[in-house]
Amino acid sequence: MSADITEALNRVFATDSEIYHGRGFMHRIGFGERPALLNIDLANAWTRSGSPFVCDEMDVIIPSVQRLLAASRAKNLPIVYTTTAFAEVDGPHTDMGIWHHKIPALAELKLGSDTVAIDERVAPEPGEQVIVKKRASAFHGTYLSSFLTAHNVDTLIVTGVTMAGCTRHTVEDAVAEGFRPIVVREAVGDRVPGVVDWNLFDIDAKFGDVEPLEAVLEYLENVKAFDESPAGTAQRR
Amino acid sequence: MSADITEALNRVFATDSEIYHGRGFMHRIGFGERPALLNIDLANAWTRSGSPFVCDEMDVIIPSVQRLLAASRAKNLPIVYTTTAFAEVDGPHTDMGIWHHKIPALAELKLGSDTVAIDERVAPEPGEQVIVKKRASAFHGTYLSSFLTAHNVDTLIVTGVTMAGCTRHTVEDAVAEGFRPIVVREAVGDRVPGVVDWNLFDIDAKFGDVEPLEAVLEYLENVKAFDESPAGTAQRR
Amino acid sequence: MSADITEALNRVFATDSEIYHGRGFMHRIGFGERPALLNIDLANAWTRSGSPFVCDEMDVIIPSVQRLLAASRAKNLPIVYTTTAFAEVDGPHTDMGIWHHKIPALAELKLGSDTVAIDERVAPEPGEQVIVKKRASAFHGTYLSSFLTAHNVDTLIVTGVTMAGCTRHTVEDAVAEGFRPIVVREAVGDRVPGVVDWNLFDIDAKFGDVEPLEAVLEYLENVKAFDESPAGTAQRR
Amino acid sequence: MSADITEALNRVFATDSEIYHGRGFMHRIGFGERPALLNIDLANAWTRSGSPFVCDEMDVIIPSVQRLLAASRAKNLPIVYTTTAFAEVDGPHTDMGIWHHKIPALAELKLGSDTVAIDERVAPEPGEQVIVKKRASAFHGTYLSSFLTAHNVDTLIVTGVTMAGCTRHTVEDAVAEGFRPIVVREAVGDRVPGVVDWNLFDIDAKFGDVEPLEAVLEYLENVKAFDESPAGTAQRR
Repeated sequence: MSADITEALNRVFATDSEIYHGRGFMHRIGFGERPALLNIDLANAWTRSGSPFVCDEMDVIIPSVQRLLAASRAKNLPIVYTTTAFAEVDGPHTDMGIWHHKIPALAELKLGSDTVAIDERVAPEPGEQVIVKKRASAFHGTYLSSFLTAHNVDTLIVTGVTMAGCTRHTVEDAVAEGFRPIVVREAVGDRVPGVVDWNLFDIDAKFGDVEPLEAVLEYLENVKAFDESPAGTAQRR
Repeated sequence: MSADITEALNRVFATDSEIYHGRGFMHRIGFGERPALLNIDLANAWTRSGSPFVCDEMDVIIPSVQRLLAASRAKNLPIVYTTTAFAEVDGPHTDMGIWHHKIPALAELKLGSDTVAIDERVAPEPGEQVIVKKRASAFHGTYLSSFLTAHNVDTLIVTGVTMAGCTRHTVEDAVAEGFRPIVVREAVGDRVPGVVDWNLFDIDAKFGDVEPLEAVLEYLENVKAFDESPAGTAQRR
Repeated sequence: MSADITEALNRVFATDSEIYHGRGFMHRIGFGERPALLNIDLANAWTRSGSPFVCDEMDVIIPSVQRLLAASRAKNLPIVYTTTAFAEVDGPHTDMGIWHHKIPALAELKLGSDTVAIDERVAPEPGEQVIVKKRASAFHGTYLSSFLTAHNVDTLIVTGVTMAGCTRHTVEDAVAEGFRPIVVREAVGDRVPGVVDWNLFDIDAKFGDVEPLEAVLEYLENVKAFDESPAGTAQRR
Repeated sequence: MSADITEALNRVFATDSEIYHGRGFMHRIGFGERPALLNIDLANAWTRSGSPFVCDEMDVIIPSVQRLLAASRAKNLPIVYTTTAFAEVDGPHTDMGIWHHKIPALAELKLGSDTVAIDERVAPEPGEQVIVKKRASAFHGTYLSSFLTAHNVDTLIVTGVTMAGCTRHTVEDAVAEGFRPIVVREAVGDRVPGVVDWNLFDIDAKFGDVEPLEAVLEYLENVKAFDESPAGTAQRR
C-alpha cells in the first residue's frame, strides 16, 4: 500500500476514533478466563501462492500463529481450525449456497483436495478440531458455538484470513453469541490493499478487541491451564 | 411389542386424537412444490447388528428408502444423508459437547470409521450430500438449513433413525425453519418397543405429517423435476 | 389416565429402560455450577381454562414453579420466561411460519393479548426476561442461547408446557447447544393422557435429566449465588 | 468527508477492484423472484439528532426508504423492520450479552422507549413485522430467517443503518443463509467518515450487490406481486 494511501487512511481513522470515543463506542471488551484459539482458513488455498485466494503477509502471519499455537498448547486450550470446502462445485445440487454467484472462484475449493488442507506449517495436532465450513463465518452452519459453550469457553483468540471476509464475519458472530473476540494484529491478513486496516478499525470500534501479538502471548502465559469443564465436576451422581 | 401393549397405546392415541382434533391440532401441513429427501443416520452403526445403536425393522426401512431414493433421483431432487460422528471421543477437547454424559455409547461413533459410514445398500451417489452432525437434529450445527434455502426447497421428505432421537428433533427443527416435514411411516425406526409409534403420534399432532410410503411415492411421481433454483434465472446481468 | 393405560405404559418403560441401560444410554447428565431457570409458556392460554391450549395439572405445576422461582431468586439466578405469540395471525405475511397449517389454533395467540401474558401467579419480576418465541423451542429464533452463553450459564432448570411440544423441543435444543437440561418432574405438563410420561421417558433416556422437585430445590439451595459473569472481572484495562 | 480522503479511498477501491475481478470475485449475485424489504434500525435513536447513535444523510435515506416502501407495498411484499432494544440495561442479568463492554452506549436503547421506536416518517403499516434484535445482525437470535423461508423469499432488499455494524453483519448473514442481499446505495448510512464507502466496497466484492435506488425501484416495478406461498396451493388435502 502506497505511503499516501496509508497516510490518508490513518487520518480517517483518527477522525473517526474521536467521534466513536465521544459517543460511547470503542471500549475494551476484555479478556476472559477460559480462552480458545481459532485459526480461520489457514489452508493452502489462502497461505500458498498459485491460488486466487492467496493472501499477503504470510511471512508474518504464519510465525505469529506458530507462537500462538505453542502458547495455547502449553495451557491445553481448545484449538479449532477452519477451512472452506465444498462437496459439489458444479451441478444443480451444490453446497456453495448462492455465494458462488458473487465469487465464482469458490468452485476451486473442492472438499478433500490439498488446496483446502491446513498449511503444514501450522498443522493441527491430535485433539484439535478442523471444521469444514461452507460460508464466511466459522460459526455459520457449524458446531463451533456449541463446542465452545460445552467447554465453558468465554474468550476467542482469532487468527487467519481474510480480514474483510471470513475473519470479520466470524468476529461479529462471536460477540453476538456471547464470546469475547480478541483479534491478533499480526496473525490476520487479506489480499488487497487497505482492507486489513479498515476492517480491524471497524472491529475494534464495535465488535472485538484488536490486540498485538505480544499482549495476547502475555495473556496466554498467565491464563489458567484448561481442564475438563468445571461443571463436569459438579455432577450429583 | 406385545399385543396388549400395542392395544393399550392405540387406545391412548384414539383418546388423545379426539382431544387434539377438537382443539385445532393435528391438521395436514401438506406437501409443497420443491421437495428434498433427507435420510437420517442410515449408517452402519444404526443399520447393522453389532453396535449399541442398531435399530429394528431394517428389513422394511432399507427397501423403503431404496424406493424413495429411486423416485427422488428420477426427479433430480436434492438428496441429503446424515451421519453422527466425532473427531475426539475422549480427552478434554471432545466435540461430543455434553451429550456423552447422557449417552456414553456415543464414544463409539468415531469420525472416519466404517461404523459411521452410510450403509452401502442405500449408498449416496455423486452429487448427494453427506452431512456429519454432532447432535441429534440434522439442522443443529450444520449447513442443512442454508443448503435447502439456497435451493428454494419447501418440503422435506424424512427417513431414518432414531424416531425418539435424531428423526424427531430434525422434524421439529424442520417445521420451525419453515420447511414442510413429511415423515415416511415405513422408512423410520428405533430400537425399543413403543417409541416409534409414540413419537410418530406426537409429530403428526404437532410438527409434521406422517404419511405411508405409497402416498409419498405417488407425490414424488407427480412432482416437477428439480432444476436450478428458479431465482437463478432472474438475474439482471 | 385410566389405571390400565398407566400400567401398560409403565411396563413398556421398564422393558425399554433395560434395553437402554444395557446399551449405554440413560446416564445422568448432571447438574452444573451456574444454573438458570427457564419457564416455558406459563401464559394464560396454557394455564387457565377457556383456551384450546390449556393444560392439565396446573394445581401442581403452578405451586412447583412458585417454589423454584423463590429458590432461584434467593440465589439471584437468571430467570427466563417464554410465551408464544404472533404479530400477524392472518393475511399473507404471517409470522406463524408454516406451523399453523398443522395447528390452526395458533391463530388465537395474538401478540399483546392477555391470552399470551405470563400467568400472574408466576409473574416475572424486574430483571427477568420474557422472550416471545414463534416456534416450539425456546431456543429457535430467539436470543436465549446467546443470553445464557454471555452469562456463563451451564445448566438449565426447565419447567412449563407442553411436554410433547415446546418443553421437549427446548430440552433437545438445550443439550445440543451445550447446556445441561434438568426437567422438573412436578413442574411440566400437557393436555392429553400419556404424553407427559412418554416424553419424560424419552428425554431421560437421551437428552436431559428428569428430576423430582425436591432434588432440584436441594440443588438450588446449595448452588453458589449468581454474580456478574466471572469473565467480567478479568478485563485487562 | 474531505475531498482528498474521498480521492484516496477511490484510488484504493480502483486498485482493489482490479485484483478482485482478476481473481474471480465481485460478480453479480443477482435479483431473485420473491423479494422482501428489510429496513434495519430506522428507529429514532439512529434517525433523529440527540442520541449517540444518530447517523448522517437522513435527508437522503428517509426519502429513499419511503420510495422503497411504496414500491414494495404496491406489490404486497413482506416488509420487515428491525430495532435494537434491551429489556435490562443494567444489573447482572442484562440481555445486552457482552456487547456493552465494547459499546457502553447500548444502555440507552431501552425496550419500549420512544428512542427505539421506528421513525414515524417510515412507520410500519399493519401486516408488517417489527423485529426487536439484541445484536448487530437482523438474523442473529431472531425469527427473520424462518420467516423468510416460510414465505419462500429468495431476495432481500436491504436499507438502514449502520453500514459498518448492523447492515453489514445482516448482509453477511443473508447470503450465508441463502438469500440474495441487495443493498440500496442511497438507503444506507453510518456516523463516521469513510465507513459507508468502505463497507459497501467490501460487500459488493464478497457478500451482496450494491445497487442504486433507481435500479431497485425498476426491479420492484417489474417483480410479480407477492401472494401466499406457492407451496400453500400444493397441499393434497
